[in-house]
This record gives sequence, C-alpha cells and structure tokens, in this order.
Amino acid sequence: MSAVANIGVVGLAVMGSNLARNLASREGNTVAVYNRTYARTQELLEEHPEAGFVASTTIDDFVASLAKPRTAIIMVQAGKGTDAVIEQLRERFEPGDIIVDGGNANFHDTIEREARIAPSGIHFVGTGISGGEEGALDGPSIMPGGTAESYETLGPILASIAAVAEGEPCVTHVGTDGAGHFVKMIHNGIEYADMELIGEAYDLLRRVGGLEPAGIADVFTAWNDGPLQSYLIEITAEVLRHTDAKTGKPFIDIVVDEAGSKGTGVWTVQNSLDLGVPVGGVAEAVFARAVSGKRAQRDAVRGLGLARPTATAAPEGFVDDVAKALYASKVVAYAQGFDAIIAGAEKYGWNIDKGAVAKIWRGGCIIRAQFLNVLADAYAANPNLATLLEAPYFAQAIADGQEAWRRVVVTATQAGVPIPGFSAALSYFDSLSAERLPAALVQGQRDFFGAHTYRRVDTPGPFHTLWSGDRSEIQTA
Amino acid sequence: MSAVANIGVVGLAVMGSNLARNLASREGNTVAVYNRTYARTQELLEEHPEAGFVASTTIDDFVASLAKPRTAIIMVQAGKGTDAVIEQLRERFEPGDIIVDGGNANFHDTIEREARIAPSGIHFVGTGISGGEEGALDGPSIMPGGTAESYETLGPILASIAAVAEGEPCVTHVGTDGAGHFVKMIHNGIEYADMELIGEAYDLLRRVGGLEPAGIADVFTAWNDGPLQSYLIEITAEVLRHTDAKTGKPFIDIVVDEAGSKGTGVWTVQNSLDLGVPVGGVAEAVFARAVSGKRAQRDAVRGLGLARPTATAAPEGFVDDVAKALYASKVVAYAQGFDAIIAGAEKYGWNIDKGAVAKIWRGGCIIRAQFLNVLADAYAANPNLATLLEAPYFAQAIADGQEAWRRVVVTATQAGVPIPGFSAALSYFDSLSAERLPAALVQGQRDFFGAHTYRRVDTPGPFHTLWSGDRSEIQTA
Repeated sequence: MSAVANIGVVGLAVMGSNLARNLASREGNTVAVYNRTYARTQELLEEHPEAGFVASTTIDDFVASLAKPRTAIIMVQAGKGTDAVIEQLRERFEPGDIIVDGGNANFHDTIEREARIAPSGIHFVGTGISGGEEGALDGPSIMPGGTAESYETLGPILASIAAVAEGEPCVTHVGTDGAGHFVKMIHNGIEYADMELIGEAYDLLRRVGGLEPAGIADVFTAWNDGPLQSYLIEITAEVLRHTDAKTGKPFIDIVVDEAGSKGTGVWTVQNSLDLGVPVGGVAEAVFARAVSGKRAQRDAVRGLGLARPTATAAPEGFVDDVAKALYASKVVAYAQGFDAIIAGAEKYGWNIDKGAVAKIWRGGCIIRAQFLNVLADAYAANPNLATLLEAPYFAQAIADGQEAWRRVVVTATQAGVPIPGFSAALSYFDSLSAERLPAALVQGQRDFFGAHTYRRVDTPGPFHTLWSGDRSEIQTA
Repeated sequence: MSAVANIGVVGLAVMGSNLARNLASREGNTVAVYNRTYARTQELLEEHPEAGFVASTTIDDFVASLAKPRTAIIMVQAGKGTDAVIEQLRERFEPGDIIVDGGNANFHDTIEREARIAPSGIHFVGTGISGGEEGALDGPSIMPGGTAESYETLGPILASIAAVAEGEPCVTHVGTDGAGHFVKMIHNGIEYADMELIGEAYDLLRRVGGLEPAGIADVFTAWNDGPLQSYLIEITAEVLRHTDAKTGKPFIDIVVDEAGSKGTGVWTVQNSLDLGVPVGGVAEAVFARAVSGKRAQRDAVRGLGLARPTATAAPEGFVDDVAKALYASKVVAYAQGFDAIIAGAEKYGWNIDKGAVAKIWRGGCIIRAQFLNVLADAYAANPNLATLLEAPYFAQAIADGQEAWRRVVVTATQAGVPIPGFSAALSYFDSLSAERLPAALVQGQRDFFGAHTYRRVDTPGPFHTLWSGDRSEIQTA
C-alpha cells in the first residue's frame, strides 16, 4: 500500500459514505476508506467508482495508505465503537498524525479522549458535523475542536467539503479539545427550541386561526421570504403541504403526534444547568417531546372530560402576530444558546469566536437561516454583549413585536392551546426587564428555613435574620 | 470503651450536633459521638451535659463504644469527606453493622457506595434528612434507603427522632440503595417549584394587585387556613410581614433580589431528563433563580428602555384567582415530581410506596403541607394513577380553578409580570388535555431532515417519506 491519500474515512454507514464521497468529489483530495466488514466497502466502491477511493481490507493497510501527516475521520457509532477505532489508529499513528471523531460524541468524552491521546503527540480532534445525510454528501456545517496545529492540516480539507454561505465555507476552528462537540450540542439544542416554536405557531394557526394545513403551508412559505427565513421554516411548509397518498388527507394528520429525540437536547439542558445558564427554550422543547410520548397520561387527562375553553376566534392580524411572537421567542432561544456557549467557553477554557460560530451555521446545518447573519453582525459590532437581546437589531425587533407576542400568549391561554416555548421565552424577557424580581422573597424564605443568608441592597453583607429568635439581623461574613 | 451506645453520630457541625441531641433526647437511645477535631466534641459535651453523650477522641474508641449491630450516622460534608469516614468505619465494622450517610449525597454516589460496601456484609444506608437545622433537632422528615434488614435496626431509631404527623413518625423505608437520597432530591426539586410559584403569586399581588408586603402577608396567612396550607406559605407570610429594623422598610425590599441555590434542584432536572420525565415546574424554578443572578444581563435589558406594559388594574376577584392558579400549578409540580419518583423507581429497581412518601413529607420537611394528606389518599385509592392530575380530588380542583388560572396568566402576560412557573404548568395541563399535539409536525420535520421515521395513526409502522425523491412512503421496519 503506498501512502497516496490525504484523508481517510473509517466507518462507511450512510453518514461516513456520504462524507467520503463528498471528500472525493473535491479537487485535491484522495480518499482512503475502511470499514470493519469489507462487504460494505466493496458495495461503496462498486456504487461509486467515480470517487477513486483507496480501499483497504485491514486497518494496517488503511493506515499505510495515508500520506503524512496521516489524517483519518472516524464515522462510527458514538461510544464504544468510537473508542475501539480510536485505539486501533492510535496504535498505528505517529506524532503529528490526526485522528478525527466526526460522530455525535458527548463533548465530555471528547475532552477525555483528547487528554488521553495528546501525550503521544498524535492530535485528536472531535468535530461536530451537522446537516444529516444530505449535508454530509453536499456540504455540512463543520465544527472542529482540537489543537490549532491540527487545524492547519485539517482545516483546508474540511473547508473543501463544507457548505458555503455567502462565499465562505461553513467551518471554523471552534476551540481546543471538546469545543467542537460542545458547540454542535448547543446547535442541536437550539434546533429543538426552534422546532418547538414552529410547532406552537402551527398549532395556533390551526386551532385558533382556523387554517387548514395547506393554508398554513402558504403562511410558512410567505414567512420564508422575510426575517423568519430558515431551512426549518422551509421544510415545515413542505411537510404541511404534503398529502398522504394512502388516505388523501394532509400528511400531518396521519402522523402519530409523538415526537422522538436522540439525546442532544437533553445534553444541552443538563450541561446548561451545570453552567448556571437558563435555557428554558430548549428545556420546554425537550419536555414537550417527552409529554407527547406519555400516551397513558394524555388519555387519562382527556378521559376526565374536563370542560375545555372553546376556541376563541382569531383576533385581527393573528397571523402576523404569530410571526412576531415566533421571531421574538426565537431571538430568546438563540440568546440563551449563545449564553451557554459563552459559559462553556469560560468553564472549559475555550476561546470561541461567537460571530464565527454564527457564520458557520448559516449553511449546511439544520438551523441555517438568514437570521444568523444578523446574529454574526451583532457579535461583530460588540463581542461583549451581555445578552443578544441588547443588540440594537434584536432589541428593536422585540420592541416592535412585544405587543403581538403578548397578544398571542393571551389568545393561546384563553383558547387552551399549549405554548410552553412562547410563554417561557416571554417570561424570560419579562424577568430580565423587571426592576425587581420575586427572587428576593425566595432568598428570604431560604434564610428563614435554612439560614442561607441574604445580601442587603444598602450594605455589603451577607446577613442572616434570627427568625426563630428575636428577629434581629446579624452579619455573617 | 464499653459498647454502650445503640447509635453513633460522626461529624458534629450544626446538623450532626442537632441530630445527636435529638437522638439523645429520646428514651432508649444512648448516643456515641465523634468528630475529627475533638475540640468540637468537647464543646458539644459542655453545652449539652443533659444528652449523656458517649464521646470518643479516636475513631477506634468510637467504634468500640457502639453496641452490635453497630449503627453510625455520618453527618459530614457530602463528597470526599463522606468517603473518608465511610472508609474508616468500613475497616472497623463487622458484617451486620450499619453505616448511615445522612448527608445530602447524590443518589448515584449512594448506589455506588452501597454496591462497594455490600459484599463485606456491612449495610450501607443513604438517607435523606429534611428540615434543616431545626428539623434535625426537633424532628425531621427522614428518607432512608438501604436493605430491608438494616431498616429493622435503624427504623425504630429513626422513628424515635422523626417529626410526627397525625400520630405517625415521618420516616419510611423508601427502597434499596439510593432510593432514599433519590426521593430526597425530588423533595428538594418540588420545594424549588413550590417556592417559585409562591414568588410569582407574591409578585402578582404586589405589581398587579397593588398590595403592600404587609397586606400580602395577610393574604398568605388567610391562604394558610385553606387548601394551600403549608409551611412555605406560613413562612412567606412571616417574611413578608417582617420590617427591616435599620430602615423601617418592609424586609423584602431591602433584600437583594437574587436567589441562590445549592444544587439539588439542578440534580432533579438533570435526572428527570435522563428519565424522560418532564419537570417544567422545577426547571423553570431553577432557571428563574439563575436569571435573577444575571445582573449584567438584567441591567443591559433594562438599560434599553423598551416600552413596558403599564400595569393593568387588578381584575375583580384577583386575589382568589391567584390562589387558584397557585394551587393548580402546585398540583402540576407535585404530579411531575411523583412521575419522576415512579420513573426513578422503575429504572433503578426500587419498590417505592408513593403514598408512604407523601405521608412522611407531611411533617418535618420544607414542603410539609395538608396537601400531602390528599396526595397520599389519592395514591391509596389508586396506586396506579397515570398522573396525579387524574385523581378525582385534583381533577376537580383543576376543573374549578381552570378559568381563574387562565385569567391570572392572561393578566400577568398583559402586565409584563414574569410567570414562568404558572405558565409552564398551564401549558403542561393544556398539552395533556390536547386531542392532537404539534409533536406530529416535529416528527414530520425530523423525518424530513434526518430520516428519523414516523408512525401512522392508521397502520403499524414506522414509515419514512422519500422527501428528496418522489415523496412516496416506505415502511422501514
């Protein structure tokens, strides 16, 4: 085997195959491929002779087929499968070579793996790849972590296959070790929030607005020409416009209304909780999917036959109101997501360029949207925004949409339409806007039952009131 | 040292000292005490000669002072401190002896510790103890895990010091290994939700209702005579009625409006996410505390000077409406908390009596309330409730309160008062009540971009639509 390939792919299931084909289709790349069972490799070779793959039947041959610095992307199932392949490569690679994990790894695992491998001089790069099977083939959004040195070799290769947005490839060196997988996780969390909000908008247009799925598809298509433009809005219109061939009914009505999930939403919330960052948008989206699957509970509550609000008629301008509520809620979801990125970067020591992250999400990935240009501009204008909500463009959007947002929440509440995403986002905004929060009472309660102390607005503290005693106040530090 | 003590306490900080004094005050108990630094032990002996403590200067003497089966409660800081003491006891204890961890351990750690110690024949019991310093002294609510065998010895000792509610001691053998600490965690999570909801009620009565703290204190005192009766409602009235001696202002107004937290709320949400149980009530409470501490973000958003809704006048009957909204939201929070207990029991193999848990929370702990009698009755009448919301009493309460609940959410939304807890709870109820959820759309989107498949309402599946192809449908399994 001669070392002719500048990049290799291990794991040739759909994602791996598509990524390998994408790589092979770009000028300058010669792609080595390896799969545990050779039958799969052979199948790929036969289906895609045009790719000129350098195929190996053994891992030794695969490694021998790679030019130095050897660079291999692992595309196998996250977890033990990944660890096994990493180990096989680590045993054969030399200092300066690069092992890339392109799977959906938990960033904590990526940090650990990098720390384990780094002493050998081999680079380990965990990279997020978003865009699904189609993105892998045509151009995904790519979020690599790892050392800056590894990115010198890897960057141009990834840039050659990434989606392109406004002339720029959707890839950036996010930060060291687990930064790439962390940012990919947040991307997915935002995706959950975005999808939930779109679902609520659809539900309102249907149950309150009285529109049929095809009519709602038209609304989404129209929205896709404005500030809400995004891949998710676009495909929502497609899904809603689709007719079920078997029944002639709208497709949406023959789908069981239970949404699955694969875990990155849960990770986003769990890690944001560790970071102390409120991410109600993602959390309510994860919970909404969970509720949808609780069929016994849904049947039990519906079985009670409690009086339900009779749907109120749609107030004038309802469709536009929903668009504004959707936009404002979406701004909140992104603000929370970027807060999580900022807090993660701080905790794990990553130097993450928020504008660059926004830019690589403009193409290839599921949340791709015009919106991200505005977001990138906001961070370019002021990298130290305390919150995205204070960026002039977004502040203005919320100012303009605030009344509509409230009207939609009011209407939904009166009509009995669940809007966990819209209302959590509005309460978040109202919390940040409040002069005083009832957190003062919570802290007072905590001091009462647990002597957890409090600070005073007028004197440095902390203090504790002797609630079981004479209720005098003592300074505790 | 002769083996005269039937129970020992290791760690004599406030919680440990108070628990030891509580034990010593009950007939039949002789209490051995040990602290790493003897000065603290000596202090306790001097302050409380009436306790008749059997004190030791070394861990060997402490162990020697315990009658068999030796039973010792560790009351030191959770984490490494606990592990160190466990190890000291494990080296000296014999099969049949009992090591109790009474600290606020993470139940995962408790499961691990129990598995590590069990082969030696020594019992390891992780137990939740709620009620703070005062509860430890006067009678806490106690939630022990561990083996049934260990409970034969430990149960009567714990029963002797527990709070008493309607003649019954607030202690029960929750389940094996980590069950006690798990249930204590959920208790704390519910406590977060309860406090947040009370905070929102206060905020509404003040900002919309126009009442002053003393007037709101009267409202809470009145509520404490009805179905909302609870320790937290009672102390809320106390806190709101308190006047700051230094300024003459209401105490609540001199407290910085940032609420702290110690982690069990976060654990509750993280673990419920692992269990697939939606706990929006706890999550929004945790997030609300987090938001309160984001001073830079709060200042930035308030600094925008965006137009704010002018407080609407309180609608007629507003105070009663808020009481009903608070009650309904509280029912949801408990329903979610018990769902987490059911799911945890299922996952970790615990046989948890939900009614018994409700009963031991009636006294001693922070969430103690009359309410828990009703809850225990509900599970006694039907241990297999799909959700607490379907229990006749609670279903009726929600039926009666539903319109008031909606009016409160509407009023708050129009007034710009944040109500993340009230609105999340209402959306949860509206989700469970909905005939169809927009989860169907979310699943359709997932099938579109990720080939995640969907089920049909009319035919077993799953199915996938060839969205990028001719949009025909294929059965995938």
